[in-house]
Amino acid sequence: MIFKQLFDADTSTLTYILADAVTREAVIIDPVRGQTKRDLAVLKELGATLKFIVETHVHADHITGAPELKAATNAQFSAGKATGLVCGDVMLDEGDTLTFGGEVLYSFATPGHTDGCTSYRWHDRIFTGDTILIGACGRTDFQQGSSEVLFDSIQKIMAYPDEFIIYPGHDYNDHRVSSVGQEKLTNPYIKGLDKAAFVEKMSNLKLPMPAKIGVAVPANVHCGDAEAAGIDTSKIAHST
Amino acid sequence: MIFKQLFDADTSTLTYILADAVTREAVIIDPVRGQTKRDLAVLKELGATLKFIVETHVHADHITGAPELKAATNAQFSAGKATGLVCGDVMLDEGDTLTFGGEVLYSFATPGHTDGCTSYRWHDRIFTGDTILIGACGRTDFQQGSSEVLFDSIQKIMAYPDEFIIYPGHDYNDHRVSSVGQEKLTNPYIKGLDKAAFVEKMSNLKLPMPAKIGVAVPANVHCGDAEAAGIDTSKIAHST
Repeated sequence: MIFKQLFDADTSTLTYILADAVTREAVIIDPVRGQTKRDLAVLKELGATLKFIVETHVHADHITGAPELKAATNAQFSAGKATGLVCGDVMLDEGDTLTFGGEVLYSFATPGHTDGCTSYRWHDRIFTGDTILIGACGRTDFQQGSSEVLFDSIQKIMAYPDEFIIYPGHDYNDHRVSSVGQEKLTNPYIKGLDKAAFVEKMSNLKLPMPAKIGVAVPANVHCGDAEAAGIDTSKIAHST
Repeated sequence: MIFKQLFDADTSTLTYILADAVTREAVIIDPVRGQTKRDLAVLKELGATLKFIVETHVHADHITGAPELKAATNAQFSAGKATGLVCGDVMLDEGDTLTFGGEVLYSFATPGHTDGCTSYRWHDRIFTGDTILIGACGRTDFQQGSSEVLFDSIQKIMAYPDEFIIYPGHDYNDHRVSSVGQEKLTNPYIKGLDKAAFVEKMSNLKLPMPAKIGVAVPANVHCGDAEAAGIDTSKIAHST
């Protein structure tokens, strides 16, 4: 198995490339617009062919790099069916899988940050998107956010064995990896909180809106096609 | 592949069990005396046969559970040749491997905390013993400790790809997993330190001696056979 973790400093987004070691078929999880050259260079270095572009959810803080990657590789776009996206190629229901070579990515719904939030399991690694961050969790105060629903999704991930590795969609503190056991012990949004206490804690966060939400959400509901979303792309220039 | 991470609260020791998913041959890394019942229960639950008991080094803070495990399973005892132990079954030189089923554990020398410190790589997971801890490193002020040598060993591990997962021999802060990239970004004994600065930092730690060093080192140089080391075992009673 081949595994790469990539970081976009502008949005603190973690992107993952998984590939079968023999066939070199690959999946990319949560690519970022503007990092396409980097992502294609990694794929080329690995000798990999991109088969699926996978989203954990409709992001509010960055635009997906899916259209550029799709144009360059002919990969298929995939996300949870509950995102409501009509532009995806393979829309996933609970337990649906994506195969690449002899490898399988297993999808399961983890709504709460958004309706369509989907986590993915590959061997003993879980890609949690914004459902669980290292020592934190996704916010629930915009899009279809629901603290009650997010609590249940977090518990769904915490039900995996303690050794299972957590790879989140972002990190703002230079962390890169955690585990179910570590989050149980250290995450202040998990440790010692029942649903009522979690909902109460989430209701008191009073966070500012993400800077890019106005362009990111419309673009991402068009699977990253900012132009189709009617966005002035000159205003979302990004280092490429 | 099968992977279990176990924690001994008394000594904050992390023990690992690795097994081939088909043959169920297994390796245990750094078992702790007094946790043999737990370890054997995990092996039984996995339907695994213990093939090797592997030590990262001659521990000063706990006695290895090797003798009890060996008696119960007939597994072979293995450690780095530079430990100087004469009681091991398979003593490892740089690059030597241990095979269990279709799996391979690769050993490489990482001296500095002690002469015989050995790290092990399994797929993209590195078991670092006390060479690198999460946000810390092993001390160098007893046994054959050398800050200069440890610095080079840390760099040897940091030369692996950023995605490679770090599983240390201890953690005192409820952490369970890191990666090469995360340690580069966050470990105060790594980030921004050249060899001279590292040696200086290590020389100023002024730590107390480990509570069990007087019994742990003599027992562990006898591969955990406390009685053979002439230790009054009634004084090292441990919850079993």
